[in-house]
Amino acid sequence: MRSTPAAETFPAHTPAASQVFTTVLAHGPLTRLEAGRRAGLSPAAVTKAVRPLLEAGYLAEGADDEARPAPGRPAGLVRVNGGRALFIGVKMTGDELIAVLTDLCCRIRLARRTPLPGRSARTVLAAVAGLVHELLAHAAESGAPVLGLGIAVSGDVDRAEGVVRYSPFLDWRDVPLAELAATTSGLPVTVDNDVRALTVAEQWFGAEAGLSDFAVVTVGAGIGCGLVVHGQVVAGAHGVAGEIGHVVVDPAGPPCHCGNRGCVEAIAGDAAIVARIREVTGRHVTDTAGAVALAHQGVPGAREVYARAGEAIGRGIATVANLLGPERVIISGEGLAAYDLFAEQIRGAFTAAAFGSAARCDVQTRPLPFEEWARGAAAAAIQSFITSAPSSGKG
Amino acid sequence: MRSTPAAETFPAHTPAASQVFTTVLAHGPLTRLEAGRRAGLSPAAVTKAVRPLLEAGYLAEGADDEARPAPGRPAGLVRVNGGRALFIGVKMTGDELIAVLTDLCCRIRLARRTPLPGRSARTVLAAVAGLVHELLAHAAESGAPVLGLGIAVSGDVDRAEGVVRYSPFLDWRDVPLAELAATTSGLPVTVDNDVRALTVAEQWFGAEAGLSDFAVVTVGAGIGCGLVVHGQVVAGAHGVAGEIGHVVVDPAGPPCHCGNRGCVEAIAGDAAIVARIREVTGRHVTDTAGAVALAHQGVPGAREVYARAGEAIGRGIATVANLLGPERVIISGEGLAAYDLFAEQIRGAFTAAAFGSAARCDVQTRPLPFEEWARGAAAAAIQSFITSAPSSGKG
Repeated sequence: MRSTPAAETFPAHTPAASQVFTTVLAHGPLTRLEAGRRAGLSPAAVTKAVRPLLEAGYLAEGADDEARPAPGRPAGLVRVNGGRALFIGVKMTGDELIAVLTDLCCRIRLARRTPLPGRSARTVLAAVAGLVHELLAHAAESGAPVLGLGIAVSGDVDRAEGVVRYSPFLDWRDVPLAELAATTSGLPVTVDNDVRALTVAEQWFGAEAGLSDFAVVTVGAGIGCGLVVHGQVVAGAHGVAGEIGHVVVDPAGPPCHCGNRGCVEAIAGDAAIVARIREVTGRHVTDTAGAVALAHQGVPGAREVYARAGEAIGRGIATVANLLGPERVIISGEGLAAYDLFAEQIRGAFTAAAFGSAARCDVQTRPLPFEEWARGAAAAAIQSFITSAPSSGKG
Repeated sequence: MRSTPAAETFPAHTPAASQVFTTVLAHGPLTRLEAGRRAGLSPAAVTKAVRPLLEAGYLAEGADDEARPAPGRPAGLVRVNGGRALFIGVKMTGDELIAVLTDLCCRIRLARRTPLPGRSARTVLAAVAGLVHELLAHAAESGAPVLGLGIAVSGDVDRAEGVVRYSPFLDWRDVPLAELAATTSGLPVTVDNDVRALTVAEQWFGAEAGLSDFAVVTVGAGIGCGLVVHGQVVAGAHGVAGEIGHVVVDPAGPPCHCGNRGCVEAIAGDAAIVARIREVTGRHVTDTAGAVALAHQGVPGAREVYARAGEAIGRGIATVANLLGPERVIISGEGLAAYDLFAEQIRGAFTAAAFGSAARCDVQTRPLPFEEWARGAAAAAIQSFITSAPSSGKG
């Protein structure tokens, strides 16, 4: 990630310090002993890691004053001091920006949405700058510094370089988004694939906290997948990972924007479903709401399009299960609105295509609004902050 | 892994000790400082971990007496004392057992092959017992104890439970192999999927040592895949992982033994290729050598069967790259003998189906004889040994 120098950097630069902080962030408040046990560190290493974080106010002792009172909790607890720093997370879709201001514990303080008047990098950056400005003004009232901006974009995103290599919905190629947004916002910027960012938030703050191997599959405009393997989000050696949308399920299927045919996304993405329903029914339908309505009305052919989409998604999930054997797969995304139309096919195709005991993977659905994705972007910014080296242009 | 109690257990039971030992095993001889740096541990933690291992003779100081002299090496090196303990690794195929006796550094001391007169668990176990007996007799002469037996089997293998859930080539279902082999051999037994075991050996002792994200794809009787993500071999929450052979590349393709159609293995596995070449050419061909010969002779249709197989393999590898973004994929397995017949198609299909920068993954081929697979089984046994709890029935 390229960024302007941070006004303030994290005061502990060892892997142990990041690890202790992350553990307390995801599971705290914790005793030092418990934090050490979970992070695999000795009590001495925990004490050493914790000291500068307490001094700088990133950690605090005692129960969280912002959380509900917990009289039964043991003394000597360490917790993250949420109000110590703020972060901004922005999720981009093809036609809207969703932004949140969070504290250091990734609790949302404020959420804002704004439509995108266009998709050029210049237009989107201006819209981001407007939203960030608004959230910064709000943050200024609280007195806590904003220490990072996370931006979540669908597609092939190189987080290390801060570059959007290819985003089909924005039609961007090789946009140095982190550098551009750092210039307009004055904040250190982390750019990540949107599903990967959502997965970080689920791993740290969601129902998956504690699971070492799980996948988040998102259905909607795109079909994405965030993977956690051995307790860490998979980023890919070259920035690409989790591209379940481009698993080919039918080589004779419809063409995909990626250049292949019959990708999961080319069958089960929103645009593919709408186009196919228009073709099959002959009705003038332009969006997902219209497509869902036709299927619910029982217009001949419409349900079958959803059934085929469900099959493609189920086969994609089985491919993930056969390759990685995760404990759980969570299906989310705005496409869940049509879930009743393809739930059965997703499950059926998954079960048929899962190899042996891979079928024992727990497949769940969970609606996560776009604000949760924006929170994921903020989580990515927090992650960069706590692993950043001091006075460096790279996080 | 179920096993009989070991005659001798590893003297260090902390994660740090296993980590230091594994680091020295894969990268040694190393200075304590370097071992700590690579394992992410403080010098104090390394000293603490190393002491009981030196005392028990598993580690030694100074340059390796069994390796080539290295006069330029700095003093104070720590190395694994290879001769301190021996291990046996067995790779099972559908018609043969390949066994090796290795030292603690997984260097092969002796290799043996024996044909399998049948595929029933009883017959295979008797053959394993015979080979193990032979290798134990050889080991006895050296005076070093044999501390574990690793068995590598293709298919769905539950390493934690020591059970072969499903092995298509042996036609086994739910065979408690570790328990049975422990009874006949008197050794602690680790059972693992064969490709996963090979991958452990590559990660520790092969050209991939040091890579944190890579895949080993094996072509031959089966099409398998071992995955290393974040520096660890992926085992799957339920014992299934890396099943690239059951990625469906053509839902209208030939039926697969797994119950689906058009799996990579149903198109590119040895049996599938031989059957298809027989069908297309009308020639009587019963094995891979015959099939390769027909293709090399230019018999019409034969080359196309290999081309289709190459395409299926390339698409399977692209699926792995799109989901995990490994740095490198190594193609190996006995099927490499026909590599000239499908290399171009593997590469072409991979490039076409790889999403964005996933195409930058380095795809290599490397012949690895079955003895290397057996060595992988020994590596799995060594891994169990160094992470085993003392006096426990489970490793």
